[in-house]
Amino acid sequence: MISRNKVKFLVSLQKKKVRDEERLYIIEGDKLVKEFLNSGRKITSLFAKPEFISGIAEESVNKIDEIVPVSYEELKKISCLNTPHNAIAVIKMEKEEIQPARVLKYLSLALDFIQDPGNLGTIIRAAAWFGIKNIVCSEDCVDVYNPKVVQATMGALLNVQVYYYDLREFLKAAGERGIPVYATVLDGESIYKHPLGSNGVILLGNESKGISDDLMPYVTTKLVIPKFTSHTRGIESLNVGMAASIVLSEFARRGH
Amino acid sequence: MISRNKVKFLVSLQKKKVRDEERLYIIEGDKLVKEFLNSGRKITSLFAKPEFISGIAEESVNKIDEIVPVSYEELKKISCLNTPHNAIAVIKMEKEEIQPARVLKYLSLALDFIQDPGNLGTIIRAAAWFGIKNIVCSEDCVDVYNPKVVQATMGALLNVQVYYYDLREFLKAAGERGIPVYATVLDGESIYKHPLGSNGVILLGNESKGISDDLMPYVTTKLVIPKFTSHTRGIESLNVGMAASIVLSEFARRGH
Repeated sequence: MISRNKVKFLVSLQKKKVRDEERLYIIEGDKLVKEFLNSGRKITSLFAKPEFISGIAEESVNKIDEIVPVSYEELKKISCLNTPHNAIAVIKMEKEEIQPARVLKYLSLALDFIQDPGNLGTIIRAAAWFGIKNIVCSEDCVDVYNPKVVQATMGALLNVQVYYYDLREFLKAAGERGIPVYATVLDGESIYKHPLGSNGVILLGNESKGISDDLMPYVTTKLVIPKFTSHTRGIESLNVGMAASIVLSEFARRGH
Repeated sequence: MISRNKVKFLVSLQKKKVRDEERLYIIEGDKLVKEFLNSGRKITSLFAKPEFISGIAEESVNKIDEIVPVSYEELKKISCLNTPHNAIAVIKMEKEEIQPARVLKYLSLALDFIQDPGNLGTIIRAAAWFGIKNIVCSEDCVDVYNPKVVQATMGALLNVQVYYYDLREFLKAAGERGIPVYATVLDGESIYKHPLGSNGVILLGNESKGISDDLMPYVTTKLVIPKFTSHTRGIESLNVGMAASIVLSEFARRGH
């Protein structure tokens, strides 16, 4: 049984301001909750149907501060989904301070003002698949702990570190170390042909505005995903999640 | 000024049943409506702010059966979006019968039970970018004229023909002609290494269930997008839109 105050609190975690204050966020779904349980990530509260709770290994149970068996109706009250799954958990944020020099040792992504939660989630998922360790988001990107982002990552958040930071600072740090900054634009060199390094920063821009003007001076290599059609109508660009997937695939293929 | 009956009718077009009966669908947004206007596609009705209407070329105006100037408040009533743009148009469906032999001349996509409108829209957009002419959807795929699909295609629908058809029939027709059927699965050969033909069918499966068992016998080549990480938690698969983008990119790179 879940108290009214608790319901209120959980719903309030859908707001970024509350999440930041409490340093907590919510994950939903049987699979996602199990992934987090198995990962050893700190779970402060678990709200789940009794049959879900009884399926958790004892050593995991001991690590959860609070376990509340709930009914489907109660889950509906606290869920962000139209049809909730069997479990919802509250997770402690593990916000690490970015160390640009460390991040720049590997191939990383820099995201400039990505607004759509689904896009950010997709990009994190692609990044995890292709072994990217770090994503640096501009401070005006959508919050990674937004429930829609978390949902779209499908657990990939467990493997990718997401930072919020001044991208000018980050790209400047790359430049000072002679590390390439790749940007996908509409008039660059073909990504299939241009040499791609084993480290570097892949900069991806906003869904409609692209990369900010004040970041372009830091770009060392402009790349394009060539369009394989002579049609022009209705095909102006690829969605940023698709572009990220293709670029990461190409870096991976070349053995970054 | 828009009548109440008209509002009712437009809202009813959000339902597949009504769209199929009327053979009409809705597109929204200044850019999308302009793309359709310029393409010469048949527009039966246009509901738009006066400033949008006055910006349309005379020869385009003549081709629209009905033009209704509307206010923002009226647009809100008929829009599927939370914040409507300046124009909404009703388009006549141009449903062509599939001719498998013709479709199989080129590289095509076959989509098995894709349910998410955003995914179908994304796939159509990627297909258009990479010069794919035809997409064959199983009959249980989400409707291509669903407003969310149309919105996600960003106009790419103008360049890609989408059919609904029995996929077994389609894949059988491919087999009879010796045309390869590629499927992305989790245990195939690396897409980066396996030879890819200049025609063929790329079969993509449902978001959670993958490719149906009854279609697998028609698959001639199982491909995998290799995972470039040793982590296993939370990275079970790529989203189908991302997978489609990567596969199409790789076919394009090899010069399909």
